[in-house]
Amino acid sequence: MNLRDYVATIPDFPSEGILFRDITPLMADGEAFHEACNDLIEYAKKIGAQVVAGPESRGFIFGCPVAHELKIGFVPVRKPNKLPRKTISYKYDLEYGSNELHIHADAIKPGQKVLIIDDLLATGGTVEATAKMIEELGGEVVGCAFLIELESLGGREKLSNYDVYTLMKY
Amino acid sequence: MNLRDYVATIPDFPSEGILFRDITPLMADGEAFHEACNDLIEYAKKIGAQVVAGPESRGFIFGCPVAHELKIGFVPVRKPNKLPRKTISYKYDLEYGSNELHIHADAIKPGQKVLIIDDLLATGGTVEATAKMIEELGGEVVGCAFLIELESLGGREKLSNYDVYTLMKY
Repeated sequence: MNLRDYVATIPDFPSEGILFRDITPLMADGEAFHEACNDLIEYAKKIGAQVVAGPESRGFIFGCPVAHELKIGFVPVRKPNKLPRKTISYKYDLEYGSNELHIHADAIKPGQKVLIIDDLLATGGTVEATAKMIEELGGEVVGCAFLIELESLGGREKLSNYDVYTLMKY
Repeated sequence: MNLRDYVATIPDFPSEGILFRDITPLMADGEAFHEACNDLIEYAKKIGAQVVAGPESRGFIFGCPVAHELKIGFVPVRKPNKLPRKTISYKYDLEYGSNELHIHADAIKPGQKVLIIDDLLATGGTVEATAKMIEELGGEVVGCAFLIELESLGGREKLSNYDVYTLMKY
């Protein structure tokens, strides 16, 4: 099974000139979704992940099956005003404007080996922000895993302090 | 293991007078998250679900592990301007204002048995909207499953046409 057959490419979404990689056909196919999650599960085992963290909302799609299968916890990384208890936050610049992510202050135990999972590695800003917060809480980022890597956007260089694993490169 | 021990209750979030049921401690505990997902997986097997649909973003947290385990597809139900291909949508009223949800027009095959999963059953508006869209696409809603049910808000009555399954009632 070639997982690439289940990724649709949509021109000019969400704005002109962008080639959007749409993973919903992969998610909709039971075999393809199973295989993609299993691949991430094997990586998580290999690096000895003790907890999975994922940014909302597409980090939940692949991160939660990995956490469930390995019987480890899942920590959501969310936009402002979504998490109800004390959080720490990290703000980072986007091409236009900025973005702010939060994580519960008690979400990570000191020394815990954390795997960050998201669907797509583009510039790496979201996962870099996630990694910084995990480290601020005393966690160790043992890997960053993505379904898709957009190589030309340089995310792997931004995350060069970490082990980066991706299933498909474009 | 009593899953209730892993649900935190936060007063006055997101606004005064609301008792927020916070499931992040349950998600963070590998055993508790595993048990909660397994309970939903057993329900999905019992009703013969062929695909799982979940509203963003917390529907992804429990819906995706169920889809992965049963090797069936997962269909995301999303806010406007998130899904890149042709969608159908459903608008519904909230206490203040309204909400609009979208689903890809090709996400459900006619006759497909669909299980809707979300974290919390409150008034039922989100899942009712999801069910209407699935039916418009020719799918059969064979069940609606939630981690938590807030009984006083009447969601179960709003979803009285469907089989509703919840793990914890408050």
